[in-house]
Amino acid sequence: MSDGLFITLEGGDGSGKTTQAELLGAWLAESGRTVVRTREPGGTEVGVEVREIVLHHRGDIAPRAEALLYAADRAHHVATVVRPALGRGEVVIQDRYIDSSVAYQGAGRVLDAEAVRGLSEWATEGLVPDLTILLDLDAASARTRLDDARTRYDRLEAEASEFHDRVRGAYLEIAAAEPARFLVVDAAQPVEEIAAAIRGRVAGLL
Amino acid sequence: MSDGLFITLEGGDGSGKTTQAELLGAWLAESGRTVVRTREPGGTEVGVEVREIVLHHRGDIAPRAEALLYAADRAHHVATVVRPALGRGEVVIQDRYIDSSVAYQGAGRVLDAEAVRGLSEWATEGLVPDLTILLDLDAASARTRLDDARTRYDRLEAEASEFHDRVRGAYLEIAAAEPARFLVVDAAQPVEEIAAAIRGRVAGLL
Repeated sequence: MSDGLFITLEGGDGSGKTTQAELLGAWLAESGRTVVRTREPGGTEVGVEVREIVLHHRGDIAPRAEALLYAADRAHHVATVVRPALGRGEVVIQDRYIDSSVAYQGAGRVLDAEAVRGLSEWATEGLVPDLTILLDLDAASARTRLDDARTRYDRLEAEASEFHDRVRGAYLEIAAAEPARFLVVDAAQPVEEIAAAIRGRVAGLL
Repeated sequence: MSDGLFITLEGGDGSGKTTQAELLGAWLAESGRTVVRTREPGGTEVGVEVREIVLHHRGDIAPRAEALLYAADRAHHVATVVRPALGRGEVVIQDRYIDSSVAYQGAGRVLDAEAVRGLSEWATEGLVPDLTILLDLDAASARTRLDDARTRYDRLEAEASEFHDRVRGAYLEIAAAEPARFLVVDAAQPVEEIAAAIRGRVAGLL
């Protein structure tokens, strides 16, 4: 569709997505590419308002409502940020995309994973990343990192580690089903080793 | 599923839905029924936040995002308000439901109407009203009523009358396809005549 490149990062909180997005973005910018770093939920003004509802609403949100809110954020973000950037030939590096919804809502919240994926496919008119980097980390390690870094948890982070285990398992299943799209990295490795593995894979796409 | 009764009111802004919901609710309450009056969007705390985004966000919202936001509001509302009330045997009188999304998003916004309906059916796990009252009014009459009553329009009300004509046409098509569920009333009639027609139909359901 264009010379743009759409790269998404997936993995639990604390797996190092932000750090790796920064390093990859800096490396691509040095090589002369225009890089757009963005995220879901919350990559647009509408998305910030949606993210606020999903993460910080007091009281429960019905599971289907939560899935639909994430899909709404995604629809607006893809239409107004991601597709325009790809159309200009830029590299989009994005923190979380459809796989997050399938892993968190589908596996974690006991909704049908294929229905959740179908919502996002409709929301995005079928936009699939060129590469998805899964930063794989067991729940105990992720929690230790978060405990070190933060004193306050949002609603999702406060869920039990059993939930994180189910999400991790869902992520690994998704990656196994689409090996051509995925790079799965052991996120317990040193930051620079992970970054090198990512650069190696991205270099092959440029 | 229960002895509850689920009644929805549809029609353009200015067609008299609020007035008729009040009159019907008062009549049912006098006859000893417990009545829950509610609306979409905005029938829950989550819904109020969603409604705020949809109606008052500055700048455009991608059409698919708008459809998904309405569906999210609906999912939370049905799960936390409508189904519990019906389960207690109460009468739910609701301002706008799935038909609004199909008419406004599907016909008005040039999205596929069946896809929009599919979102709502997933959101509500297939909850269909026992009766839907369509207050039918041409766009010019509706606009005249609104001009009399208000000085400030929200985003949807400010759309062109051509848009309202398409919505009206979509409503009439939906009603024609499901005559058993619909009561179509000429909303240009006097308030009390409309109310009597509605009472006559509801009495048959009790």
